[in-house]
Amino acid sequence: MYKLVLIRHGESTWNLENRFTGWTDVDLTPTGVSQAMSAGKLLKAEGWDFDLCYTSVLKRAIRTLWLTLDEMDRTWLPVVKDYRLNERHYGGLQGLNKADMAKQYGDEQVLVWRRSYDTPPPALEATDPRCERQDRRYAHVDPSAVPLTECLKDTVARVLPAWNDSIAPSIKAGKRVLIAAHGNSIRALIKYLDNISDQDIVGLNIPNGIPLVYELDDNLKPIRHYYLGDAAAAAAAAAAVASQGKA
Amino acid sequence: MYKLVLIRHGESTWNLENRFTGWTDVDLTPTGVSQAMSAGKLLKAEGWDFDLCYTSVLKRAIRTLWLTLDEMDRTWLPVVKDYRLNERHYGGLQGLNKADMAKQYGDEQVLVWRRSYDTPPPALEATDPRCERQDRRYAHVDPSAVPLTECLKDTVARVLPAWNDSIAPSIKAGKRVLIAAHGNSIRALIKYLDNISDQDIVGLNIPNGIPLVYELDDNLKPIRHYYLGDAAAAAAAAAAVASQGKA
Repeated sequence: MYKLVLIRHGESTWNLENRFTGWTDVDLTPTGVSQAMSAGKLLKAEGWDFDLCYTSVLKRAIRTLWLTLDEMDRTWLPVVKDYRLNERHYGGLQGLNKADMAKQYGDEQVLVWRRSYDTPPPALEATDPRCERQDRRYAHVDPSAVPLTECLKDTVARVLPAWNDSIAPSIKAGKRVLIAAHGNSIRALIKYLDNISDQDIVGLNIPNGIPLVYELDDNLKPIRHYYLGDAAAAAAAAAAVASQGKA
Repeated sequence: MYKLVLIRHGESTWNLENRFTGWTDVDLTPTGVSQAMSAGKLLKAEGWDFDLCYTSVLKRAIRTLWLTLDEMDRTWLPVVKDYRLNERHYGGLQGLNKADMAKQYGDEQVLVWRRSYDTPPPALEATDPRCERQDRRYAHVDPSAVPLTECLKDTVARVLPAWNDSIAPSIKAGKRVLIAAHGNSIRALIKYLDNISDQDIVGLNIPNGIPLVYELDDNLKPIRHYYLGDAAAAAAAAAAVASQGKA
């Protein structure tokens, strides 16, 4: 049996400001830092250890991983930073306030943008200063693979090659893997692992900074999954994520 | 022309306590943290940027790199952690006070241990709790390659394969490389690059946390090198390193 641990980054400044973030590279809040440290303390206290870590190229996930590893005294572990684990791209909504958008377009439209499986938000213009195609960190990526917007279906299509090409072979090679990533890149992975329907996956909310364990069989099919620590706290944190973006 | 930047980690707790450190995984002091942040601020202010970073598997170098990258807003850069960039192994002296050893064995003997090119300090026993052969981070390394002690000559023999196999090809491929490492692993690299004699290399002292730039020609032969920032401060910091270990 294999075990995989997923952590959504701690609270970010734009989580706190209730803004659509996507690929914008905002940092953790002090609460987010504390959540990441708690994740590391919990993993250490429960005797977890890892051989290989994955994260995105966004600092809220990278810092979450750094803080987690630091608490575990595992700063020396190898870390793969893969843009394919980035958050869902939020297109033209990036930077805008979720509640403002709800007031302007209605709760229903914002819910479609946030939670429809296959309806992306309005695309960024490639000339928009927010567009990441000018960002050097994606210089090695075919520009057409740097999205201007994404629905969750697009994120799934981006995340799965990272799983198939790199993460799954590492797990099968016996490496204990820790992934620090984002609400939607984790959701994309879980959709695939647990074979969740397009309808149901959008209702799954991942709390910040709480280690989520997947036990996998020889074919990497899930046997069970659970959050570490206080289950009620994890459920409450997931419910709080769900309630964002209402006017 | 290629440019390579080397940074010795910031002051560590055992630098401060004047203890032989070697492969012992001690952390930075607040001064060391501040030195690493200053290195990052300086690199950013002077417009430096990188594509690939190398460090050791010791947290004083890793944290120095993290803090440097954080100040440069480059947390997303790929980082290779290679044990071959570790500090010189100090054998049975690891953990002991440099001045105490000088009182006990005399300044001259301590200077031989610290600065002879080919005389290693007394070896650790493989059963010594300080021996790193039990440390999981070296599990992938042939145990005979995990030293029980090293003279600088041994460190050179360990560091050069990392240069030849990985760092030099990356530089030649056009990657701008930053290395955060240790006094003796950096000295080993410099000995090779500048073809410094066995006698002279032991007199070269690397200050903590000051970026050292090497400009290299097409064959990676040095054209010139210089410390960033205040040259007098770098020289004073190097002199302070040289004066450690006297009774």
